[in-house]
Amino acid sequence: MLRAALCAVFLLGALPSLAKESRGHITVVLLGATGDLAKKYLWEGLFHLYLDQVSSGHSFTFHGAALTAHEPGQRLMFEVLKKLACPSDVSPNRCAVVKDQFLKLSGYHQLKTSENYTALNREIETLLQQEGLKEAGRIFYFSVPSFAYAEISRHINSSCRPRQGAWLRVVLEKPFGQDHKSAQQLAMELRTFFQEEEMYRVDHYLGKQAVAHILPFRDQNRRFLDPIWNRHHVERVEIVLKETLDAKGRTSFYEQYGVIRDVLQNHLTEVLMSLAMELPANISSAEEVLQRKLQTFKSLQGLGSSSAVLGQYQAYASQVREELQKTQAYASTTPTFAGVLIQLDSLRWEGVPFLLTSGKALDERLGYVRILFRNQAYCTQKETLRVAGQSPCEARQIIFYIGHGELGRPAVLVSRNLFKPIMPEGSWKEVVDLPQLRLFGHPLSDYYVYSPAKEREAYSVLISSIFHGRKDSFITTENLLASWEFWTPLLESLTQQVPRLYPGGLENQHLLDFEIVGRELVFTLKEPVELLHADGQTPGDYRTIQDKFRQSPLVSGWPEELITQLASDMEAAAASAVMRSGEFHMALSGGSSPVVLFQRLVTHHFGFPWRRTHLWLVDERCVPLADPESNFGSLHDHLLQHVRVPYLNIHPMPVHLNRRLCVEEDRGPELYAKEIAALVTNASFDFVLLGMGSDGHTASLFPQSSRGLKGAQLVVLTESPVKPHQRMSLSLPLINKARQVAVLVMGKGKHEITTQISRVGQEPRKYPISGVRPSSGQLVWYVDYEALLG
Amino acid sequence: MLRAALCAVFLLGALPSLAKESRGHITVVLLGATGDLAKKYLWEGLFHLYLDQVSSGHSFTFHGAALTAHEPGQRLMFEVLKKLACPSDVSPNRCAVVKDQFLKLSGYHQLKTSENYTALNREIETLLQQEGLKEAGRIFYFSVPSFAYAEISRHINSSCRPRQGAWLRVVLEKPFGQDHKSAQQLAMELRTFFQEEEMYRVDHYLGKQAVAHILPFRDQNRRFLDPIWNRHHVERVEIVLKETLDAKGRTSFYEQYGVIRDVLQNHLTEVLMSLAMELPANISSAEEVLQRKLQTFKSLQGLGSSSAVLGQYQAYASQVREELQKTQAYASTTPTFAGVLIQLDSLRWEGVPFLLTSGKALDERLGYVRILFRNQAYCTQKETLRVAGQSPCEARQIIFYIGHGELGRPAVLVSRNLFKPIMPEGSWKEVVDLPQLRLFGHPLSDYYVYSPAKEREAYSVLISSIFHGRKDSFITTENLLASWEFWTPLLESLTQQVPRLYPGGLENQHLLDFEIVGRELVFTLKEPVELLHADGQTPGDYRTIQDKFRQSPLVSGWPEELITQLASDMEAAAASAVMRSGEFHMALSGGSSPVVLFQRLVTHHFGFPWRRTHLWLVDERCVPLADPESNFGSLHDHLLQHVRVPYLNIHPMPVHLNRRLCVEEDRGPELYAKEIAALVTNASFDFVLLGMGSDGHTASLFPQSSRGLKGAQLVVLTESPVKPHQRMSLSLPLINKARQVAVLVMGKGKHEITTQISRVGQEPRKYPISGVRPSSGQLVWYVDYEALLG
Repeated sequence: MLRAALCAVFLLGALPSLAKESRGHITVVLLGATGDLAKKYLWEGLFHLYLDQVSSGHSFTFHGAALTAHEPGQRLMFEVLKKLACPSDVSPNRCAVVKDQFLKLSGYHQLKTSENYTALNREIETLLQQEGLKEAGRIFYFSVPSFAYAEISRHINSSCRPRQGAWLRVVLEKPFGQDHKSAQQLAMELRTFFQEEEMYRVDHYLGKQAVAHILPFRDQNRRFLDPIWNRHHVERVEIVLKETLDAKGRTSFYEQYGVIRDVLQNHLTEVLMSLAMELPANISSAEEVLQRKLQTFKSLQGLGSSSAVLGQYQAYASQVREELQKTQAYASTTPTFAGVLIQLDSLRWEGVPFLLTSGKALDERLGYVRILFRNQAYCTQKETLRVAGQSPCEARQIIFYIGHGELGRPAVLVSRNLFKPIMPEGSWKEVVDLPQLRLFGHPLSDYYVYSPAKEREAYSVLISSIFHGRKDSFITTENLLASWEFWTPLLESLTQQVPRLYPGGLENQHLLDFEIVGRELVFTLKEPVELLHADGQTPGDYRTIQDKFRQSPLVSGWPEELITQLASDMEAAAASAVMRSGEFHMALSGGSSPVVLFQRLVTHHFGFPWRRTHLWLVDERCVPLADPESNFGSLHDHLLQHVRVPYLNIHPMPVHLNRRLCVEEDRGPELYAKEIAALVTNASFDFVLLGMGSDGHTASLFPQSSRGLKGAQLVVLTESPVKPHQRMSLSLPLINKARQVAVLVMGKGKHEITTQISRVGQEPRKYPISGVRPSSGQLVWYVDYEALLG
Repeated sequence: MLRAALCAVFLLGALPSLAKESRGHITVVLLGATGDLAKKYLWEGLFHLYLDQVSSGHSFTFHGAALTAHEPGQRLMFEVLKKLACPSDVSPNRCAVVKDQFLKLSGYHQLKTSENYTALNREIETLLQQEGLKEAGRIFYFSVPSFAYAEISRHINSSCRPRQGAWLRVVLEKPFGQDHKSAQQLAMELRTFFQEEEMYRVDHYLGKQAVAHILPFRDQNRRFLDPIWNRHHVERVEIVLKETLDAKGRTSFYEQYGVIRDVLQNHLTEVLMSLAMELPANISSAEEVLQRKLQTFKSLQGLGSSSAVLGQYQAYASQVREELQKTQAYASTTPTFAGVLIQLDSLRWEGVPFLLTSGKALDERLGYVRILFRNQAYCTQKETLRVAGQSPCEARQIIFYIGHGELGRPAVLVSRNLFKPIMPEGSWKEVVDLPQLRLFGHPLSDYYVYSPAKEREAYSVLISSIFHGRKDSFITTENLLASWEFWTPLLESLTQQVPRLYPGGLENQHLLDFEIVGRELVFTLKEPVELLHADGQTPGDYRTIQDKFRQSPLVSGWPEELITQLASDMEAAAASAVMRSGEFHMALSGGSSPVVLFQRLVTHHFGFPWRRTHLWLVDERCVPLADPESNFGSLHDHLLQHVRVPYLNIHPMPVHLNRRLCVEEDRGPELYAKEIAALVTNASFDFVLLGMGSDGHTASLFPQSSRGLKGAQLVVLTESPVKPHQRMSLSLPLINKARQVAVLVMGKGKHEITTQISRVGQEPRKYPISGVRPSSGQLVWYVDYEALLG
């Protein structure tokens, strides 16, 4: 039959003769030829490819394949093929003729055993030989569940590779793993069978016309965008895919994935990259684009459970129980709605919120990207007198309207008070006959609106790209792994989180509205149930149990309260020191509790006199300052990077003099002591923050050593029982000269030592912490309930 | 007559008998009793004071005074007094009785000579004696031009001070000087006559009810405002006073002052302070409030001419010519409209624009403060389905409506989706019968709206405060001088600036709309004339004159182009170094040209890989690093404070080892060389930025010395012919190892040496710059037209 088809084609003259001019034969194998995706999009995409390329000098054959036996499979497949339609710009006559050819060039194969694959290969080879065709390449399109990838790949690699000089392209459909590890695993497997350049991972969003146009838009409008495409001008970016459908009928897949894996990790992340990446000089270089993307992935701030809000439509649970045959007791925490706040650590985007949102069972079907610019204008004339659409005080936005929604087609919208964009002539047309619509707060007439001259299905676009070997619309392995690396920690942190239930559709009302609070996302409407504590205790219950600890004032509370109080006390100390002497000298300890404190200071204490604050270290590990173990490193990353302490007010401990670590003869301790003596009046710090180890150590003064407990030495080298052993530390006498000393103790792990220390006297040799007793300053204990009460 | 009046009062029983219970007598002297201000507000304020205090146990006499002779002055004054009215809540009967008393207690005096003053004092003393009254205090209200202050003050101080134990309060009306110097002068004069606590400087804006309520509002709503009153939540603050009137009839005053001195320096600045200051614990402590204000003044970023946009209504010029009898040739540059962008260098407000705007001949009369909060919410449901007024996605704002405008009364408005404010019961009432109005983009029904239960004139409020000795509504000397210190540089920088002409009234349209561009303000609509250059030259004219200088590539242009190019070249170098080795090592010179370059890098190069950049110094002066002369200090302030270079990537030169400056035996140069050798591969910097002195020096390598020109030493100590003499510098051999060297030369002052250097060969001993010749790297000259062409 194939041969007959080819002859038919040749007779029609649509393909050149088999002479040398032929550009070669292309074999397309669609695995999963009778599946949903194939039915809905892929065969159509292949047919459109054939329509486009029928006169290009290539010859084609199309092989549908599946696990089904030949007879029923073939029947199923041809039912699909019979329904294929041409785009509206193809004449019915031509359509009929080419469709007829296409059907003749297409056949069905059962591909199950390795024999099946060798048979397929034999058939291809035979055709090439009989017709004397030069082979150009083979496309294998995997429209099958990903668990089948490895086996199919093995067969293709061993039995179906094209002849020397012809290319192989395997097209893979998501999911590409469930998390970073499984994606890595899958990528490794695939790499044993295929070269990176042979693989085309599809994210069909990259075939959506509005998405595909983001980079070209940025490129062609550099002149307008260069000054404003940054944190000084962009207020926020929204990347949204809303669906009205729910997961019914697909829960066996959905229950394992959820909305973040299904939509955010891939589609919305790719859109984010197109928006946020530094624009490459040449946007058609796939390699340059990839490099910029990878850089952008690196600049994404890590996500925690509070970076997201999750929802689940109410009917989902019963759908899962029904479809997966679960008992009534089965509770699913799979989110069907998510909003995620992403921020970038780059000069361009620092502080600009990128909000990624997607959900099922929402009020409308709509995908869009909205870049809202800050209003930087002041309009002197009152509102009612302004000229509509021209006022610089109205919202300025750029919208990539991906599809559906009230507009019902892909579009690019630019506020008229922003600029008139440059759009590629021919492929995008300005829409003049605007419907009476308001979009994003404004009538359509306030925007320049452009739509594609010819709407194309994403899969048709992508299949054409595969054919042309344009890799920039596909996900490389590096790209994929970078994305999973970014999303996996969030997914892991959310496994136990119960999503908010929503009724679905229009009834959702404000239930899924959310907002940014600091670096977190929260739903705007509170659920009353959240106000109850699971254990029936409310914060503050214990508040006044004790108010002394070792004869000094004690502040105790839940961790958050405690940190809040300590941060306030620090600011008060700073303010009074600056009032008194113009400067505030504070010595800080390492460890994890201070990190929370630093975050509190950064996000809540705007009046803190950082410019007049000197920061000293209480102790340091003898590692290079850039080492992840360094106390200074942690202080730098969590505090110094976020506030403006003058460079010269920062005093890391000199543990790395002459590029070696804590060598006695480099006299690091003496140097630090000298610096303290020179800058701190009477070497009396205004504030010293200490911790307490579970062995009773404080600073880097450890039990069973007399180092730093007495004497005139202000700074000492010590030995820790745990690695890294070598340490530098302020001495007890120096600490005890401070005006104010705070000891912060948190967590269950500290309960035992806390109890012990509450009972012992002054035994610094055994418990160095017990030697902390400021001679004229004040000592305050900040101990959380867990440490205090167990 | 006075005596009779007092008797009348006593008979009425409105004042207590003259027994010991009397709280004492108060003498009020109003200087300028027949002037505009007195007529319009002050007598009414005094009358209302009397109404309020008539039963308080104090007795009063009121003395109007002016330069006019007794007869006509008295007649004029009593014409004003006769028209006095009571507030609406006073019964007509009581009003008539008390007004009658008030008239009897009031008299007129000509106050011109020192005899006049002694006579006035004698009269007061006589009354006190005759009636056996204890004196409580004296108020002298100066409603006279400020040039008369000194003389009047002298007379009061020498002749009219009250008896021992009684207080003196002198009330001063603006203007208090024209700039910092004249204000200081005036303050010094006044201080020779009065104690600080005796002076009450009026800014009547502080008596406006909505303005006076800003601090109490912030205090009473701490719970709601604490989390949001900062840069993370506030998008912008507008402080606006719009007038419809023009300056007609007042140009003799106005022409000297203009809108900034008339409105912004005082009224709007005071409002700014109330909004921006850190909230004192006790807002009724005048001292605490003052301290917070002074702190806030310190945190204001300095203004330059580009911080403001100026306008002048078209008729102003002819009004000035007419009223001041100027010729047709007279051109006034006095602004009648100004918009000013103010930013604060505090953690709370950093980056939040405060826009101060005022003008005459605008479209409406209105004063307001608007705090617009950022929209932090995302609303999942589409716009048309949201519940109006409740959606978190609608604008959230707080407005202090000072008066007039469409609302027609003072008010406080808070968006309903923000919070329901706590307002003092009794004095402010929620407005329920809202007119059908839109204010600031929203119907009034979207706000909680409060108005004063009883509207009071600002002057009545202030006169009552003076009587009660409440100083917090008045401008202290420190406060005044801080304000002038802030505004004077802007005023000076604007003297030559030609304001934009505007037609006035509704015709202004968008002509006075302005916007923020970086740290500058510009009018949104461009004036075509601005595009022409005065000298007929357009930038780029000379662009291609030469492209080599001393056999190396030359980039030349106008200063801005040059800096733009250099900054781009630096970023390109950084990007390629990071690509190559993961790091970028750059050595920078001091001086003023690099400062402009730093600013360019900070504001335009968002993709600069700062986190991977190491910064080194080319040379340094032997001064402490915190010294204003230090190159590092300048680098710190202009670059490091604004970008995120990790602490450990910053490498100041060690000119201050062991707390002494460039002592040979401290081996600073060796230390720096060691650090370079350890971190920079082959000690070859990726980029070195040099300047050129007018003597041909570069780095700190000076003519007539061989130091650092040859040999193995990478870093050397040198001697400069100018102070500070001691320097540390990279050596020529080290510089010449760099991959890229840029020499930046700008300004007319460099023309001569540039010409000379273009002609000489390699004579580093005579011209150190001529020794710059990278052995394998590239040298590029960046020379501006003035340096190149003179």
